[in-house]
Amino acid sequence: MALLRSYVSGGWHTAPDQGVPLRDAVTGEEVARISSTGVDMAAALDYGRRVGGPALRELTFHQRAALLKALASELREHRDELYELSAKTGATLGDSKFDVDGGIGVLFSYASKGKRELPNDTVYVDGGVEPLGRGGTFVGQHIATPLRGVAVQINAFNFPVWGPLEKFAPAFLAGVPSLVKPASQTAYLTARLVELIIESRILPEGALQFVCGSAGDLLDHVTGQDLVSFTGSASTAQKLRAHRNVVRHSVRFNAEADSLNCSILGPDATPGTAEFDLFVKQLVTEMTVKAGQKCTAIRRAFVPAALLDDVAGAASARLAKVTVGNPAAEGVRMGALASLEQREEVRRSLKALLSAGKVVFGDPEQVEVVGADAERGAFISPVLLTGDPERAEPHEVEAFGPVATLLPYTSTTQVVEYAARGQGSLAGSVVTGDAEFAREVVLGAAPWHGRLLVLDADDAKESTGHGSPLPQLVHGGPGRAGGGEEIGGIRGVLHHMQRTAVQASPKVLSAVTGRWVPGTPRAEGVHPFRKSLAELKIGDSVVAGPRVVTQSDVDHFAEFTGDTFYAHTDPAAAAANPLFGGIVAHGYLVVSFAAGLFVSPEPGPVLANYGLENLRFLTPVKPGDELTVTLTAKQITPRNDQDYGEVRWDADVTNGAGDSVAKYDVLTLVAKENA
Amino acid sequence: MALLRSYVSGGWHTAPDQGVPLRDAVTGEEVARISSTGVDMAAALDYGRRVGGPALRELTFHQRAALLKALASELREHRDELYELSAKTGATLGDSKFDVDGGIGVLFSYASKGKRELPNDTVYVDGGVEPLGRGGTFVGQHIATPLRGVAVQINAFNFPVWGPLEKFAPAFLAGVPSLVKPASQTAYLTARLVELIIESRILPEGALQFVCGSAGDLLDHVTGQDLVSFTGSASTAQKLRAHRNVVRHSVRFNAEADSLNCSILGPDATPGTAEFDLFVKQLVTEMTVKAGQKCTAIRRAFVPAALLDDVAGAASARLAKVTVGNPAAEGVRMGALASLEQREEVRRSLKALLSAGKVVFGDPEQVEVVGADAERGAFISPVLLTGDPERAEPHEVEAFGPVATLLPYTSTTQVVEYAARGQGSLAGSVVTGDAEFAREVVLGAAPWHGRLLVLDADDAKESTGHGSPLPQLVHGGPGRAGGGEEIGGIRGVLHHMQRTAVQASPKVLSAVTGRWVPGTPRAEGVHPFRKSLAELKIGDSVVAGPRVVTQSDVDHFAEFTGDTFYAHTDPAAAAANPLFGGIVAHGYLVVSFAAGLFVSPEPGPVLANYGLENLRFLTPVKPGDELTVTLTAKQITPRNDQDYGEVRWDADVTNGAGDSVAKYDVLTLVAKENA
Repeated sequence: MALLRSYVSGGWHTAPDQGVPLRDAVTGEEVARISSTGVDMAAALDYGRRVGGPALRELTFHQRAALLKALASELREHRDELYELSAKTGATLGDSKFDVDGGIGVLFSYASKGKRELPNDTVYVDGGVEPLGRGGTFVGQHIATPLRGVAVQINAFNFPVWGPLEKFAPAFLAGVPSLVKPASQTAYLTARLVELIIESRILPEGALQFVCGSAGDLLDHVTGQDLVSFTGSASTAQKLRAHRNVVRHSVRFNAEADSLNCSILGPDATPGTAEFDLFVKQLVTEMTVKAGQKCTAIRRAFVPAALLDDVAGAASARLAKVTVGNPAAEGVRMGALASLEQREEVRRSLKALLSAGKVVFGDPEQVEVVGADAERGAFISPVLLTGDPERAEPHEVEAFGPVATLLPYTSTTQVVEYAARGQGSLAGSVVTGDAEFAREVVLGAAPWHGRLLVLDADDAKESTGHGSPLPQLVHGGPGRAGGGEEIGGIRGVLHHMQRTAVQASPKVLSAVTGRWVPGTPRAEGVHPFRKSLAELKIGDSVVAGPRVVTQSDVDHFAEFTGDTFYAHTDPAAAAANPLFGGIVAHGYLVVSFAAGLFVSPEPGPVLANYGLENLRFLTPVKPGDELTVTLTAKQITPRNDQDYGEVRWDADVTNGAGDSVAKYDVLTLVAKENA
Repeated sequence: MALLRSYVSGGWHTAPDQGVPLRDAVTGEEVARISSTGVDMAAALDYGRRVGGPALRELTFHQRAALLKALASELREHRDELYELSAKTGATLGDSKFDVDGGIGVLFSYASKGKRELPNDTVYVDGGVEPLGRGGTFVGQHIATPLRGVAVQINAFNFPVWGPLEKFAPAFLAGVPSLVKPASQTAYLTARLVELIIESRILPEGALQFVCGSAGDLLDHVTGQDLVSFTGSASTAQKLRAHRNVVRHSVRFNAEADSLNCSILGPDATPGTAEFDLFVKQLVTEMTVKAGQKCTAIRRAFVPAALLDDVAGAASARLAKVTVGNPAAEGVRMGALASLEQREEVRRSLKALLSAGKVVFGDPEQVEVVGADAERGAFISPVLLTGDPERAEPHEVEAFGPVATLLPYTSTTQVVEYAARGQGSLAGSVVTGDAEFAREVVLGAAPWHGRLLVLDADDAKESTGHGSPLPQLVHGGPGRAGGGEEIGGIRGVLHHMQRTAVQASPKVLSAVTGRWVPGTPRAEGVHPFRKSLAELKIGDSVVAGPRVVTQSDVDHFAEFTGDTFYAHTDPAAAAANPLFGGIVAHGYLVVSFAAGLFVSPEPGPVLANYGLENLRFLTPVKPGDELTVTLTAKQITPRNDQDYGEVRWDADVTNGAGDSVAKYDVLTLVAKENA
């Protein structure tokens, strides 16, 4: 059988030894062998830092996003091949899609977020400019820059495609190279994924390395600029977190550990309601998808004490219809566990759970199997238990398979408290049609959860379900769940970057961030609306006006627009307004006149004003006041895939006394070149 | 001498033993004794969780902010008393102000940030609503809720007032109770600070506890809902980070460790330039303030090789004018180290540094002292060294006293690489008048720094200096600096909260967050502008229109405002615009007409429209289109200290086809009660 290869330091590495056999979860046959013997871990890290990092940092966020999109499209072409290998892990086709399509979906999502939510630049600007002195000569701004090390990603066996990709995508977008280490059991699938990625030649060399086999002395070589992220068991997470070298260099360490996730049925959701059915259906799904081998799966199902028998009955009836067996066989709904060792592990945990509960459905030792040998393949029956929520076991013992425990509760306060006994979970769900109950449970349980789903008749059709992490939402949970946080859109990107507070004069800060900061000298000359993106520079500005706002302007605007608010039309009432003390011009009149002042009417590179942000009316404008507007190019974002880009302008409208009456950002689309 | 007391579990605790003596750093006399014998650490944590946490969580962010402000004002009244105690730590009056006024300043800053940047609510809404399905029935939103444990704060000896307050303020604002543990040497000053706080009775009981003396078995009792933040040496940080119980429960652990901070002189800053003088002056200040006992102080001063002698000469001349001695004595500019043990420690480190460098100024063993006994007090001379930047010692050995090393460099790339050899720093500075040099150094060194200051002639007057963390900017640094992050405005608050992704239908999400989410049913009826804050509810809305936009409206608006942009006025040119393909109405016309539609003109609770946010023009409005606007109350923020509050309205302007043409948030001030 083939020995799986590693991809390190710019080339494929085959171990000089025989390796360890990996077995098909369904047939028990050998699929491949694994060994990382001979991989020079220190050299691989160094290669990532020297070659991968610099190559990534040359690209802007938008360029990296475009590569992620290309990679996602490429992998999509090879889905069938990946499904086929995935079946050997015991996965049904549905399970495989969850893993493979889910992983590709993460790439697409980050490609899209990167393009829409990040600048076409290499520096991320975090938050606003902080004034640090009254005179405006000293300001602060947080920026984020990519860490100069390698993101070491240690994956779990249960998601051999999604797992590596959900860690890789945000690191790549941040500009940090990855070193992927799969879990052995299912490493042959990740190995093929990595082959496809490397063969595609889409990524810069060094951006992705792959250590297939033991991690060896890898962690002995990480530094404060590297990151380690781990998905797997709580006990391994603890070992890695306390690793001497990780501790010594304060290495960023992120863990996702399986947790005792709960699902809570609302008291309103009695048999016959949509929510009762949704709860039961979701519970059975979570037990059986991936044969329950999801770190987000429901382990504790809390139901109102009065509904316990109803739920047990309905769930058992559904579970009875789940055909277990060879994923290739007709009608099979649940495949095998990833290995015989996993089955032993699940049976051991079940023993502990049974000391505090009893079986409602299934036999831990027996299962009817279709199209396979029940003993050679790692098959096990779904097992539903009931338990005593006052005992520790249901909250602490995890059987990482198709196992869940029904637990009764009698009040909202109680079930929130029970939920917390899991000591930190990746995900939880509340199934209820009662928004108030949902609110109480969500706000009560949130400190122990990374994600909480409220499932009801309204969202059921579109809901992605209890167990599905989504790239736009954070994945991770406190305490027992590892205390980590991954993905969550741009949040996951920032986890790979160092946030730095920069203090400087506005001029220097503008130079550092590439964005114009108020207080930086402006450049006047040709009207900036006459400049294409290629010609425009931040700081280019136009000062226009003054224009006097007359009483008749205000009267006319009120009449024309219909905005006859008393502060614009009724002198006596306006005088009584605590903020104005007399007639004021409409805010919309002020910004409209300002546009009339700064506009450059003839056709040119400015194509459209597509929006406006952060508008604040700072000083009331009274009839007779004269307005001057200063418009300054603040941020320039060319689009890689368009012949235009976005320009954000700083607008400052002042009165005759020089006070700002309105400040805002004007958003425009500007052509890259003059026609 | 008095035995310092702890404040735990609702009362003062005096140890039953004699304690350990704490000595005046100047005279060597005993100031107080310290012991935490008999403090039940587990009970204290439990008390914080049971009493302090719930009391804090009953308050909104604004209420907590108001208490911080009251506390800051109260402490300001007692500054002189604190200065007096501070002198015993070896601090000059200037040093004491740095510590005491700085700490009070953090409270004021968080009070102000809490009021301005956080909602008057108990839940923090993080980021925008994420659509999770095409139909709009399933959406996501991140929220942050306070952790349900205690923030254990282990402080360093060098800032006995600022240190505890900069950790306490964000925890308190987050709604998390604090347990403060001071470093022994200067604990008498923190003890007095805590007495003042407790005696003021401003804070809810349980919000602040104080363990004065050894931490004992404190960390054996922390859980995944508690936090541990530590400031001090890198070696202690490592010990605590790897603590068995901290690791086991994935306890959030934050460390600020002293680091080998650098200051970099630009090649442009030759003798005679403002920047040369600023560099030298700042270097001497950083060496001597707090006798160099600042974790942010400059340890490595990089200067262009050609300027090394000039800098050494100018710095020596300045250092020669620094009078060392009893802070109470006339003319003293630098006091004592915090203890004789610290002096021994500094001398030990100096020996290591001298193996790779030589003394330019000062004698580690000798110092002339004014008004005190040089041996009884912990006095030491400022010591300036030169070193070899290719050796490890200058980058790795920290002398935590008035000690810095001058190091030559020859290129920008080289100095950035040298800066990184510190392996992670809290703060760095670049002193240059060359914005391009500043940019290169900042972007190159940022991954190794929590804060970077660019000092030049423009910002020097207002600059707060290399060594001063500011509450609005993050404090912390990667690697050697501990890998932590504190303060930084609201960021520091969020470090004490759990971020949770909530997935739900819009209606349920509105109930959970208290903010109206698009897709939630609206309530029509009385015009919402007629409702006071007391009457208004989120979801209250008005639908107004339609109004047809005519060609003559567009012509008239162009003429009236002066906004004669071709897309509004020139049919042929407008037809050639790639986005419009014909005449479009002004965006400002659309929002003005919308205001005319939704306004309720007569005097009432709505006092003013003070701004507008997130305006996007989504579909061009052509002459003949009819506009309808739907305005919905989205977020209601009463002001505790005003008789009005803020209401954010969701505005959605649609055309006859039902497509949104503009979406934005309207910001208004609304009276709490109807007049």
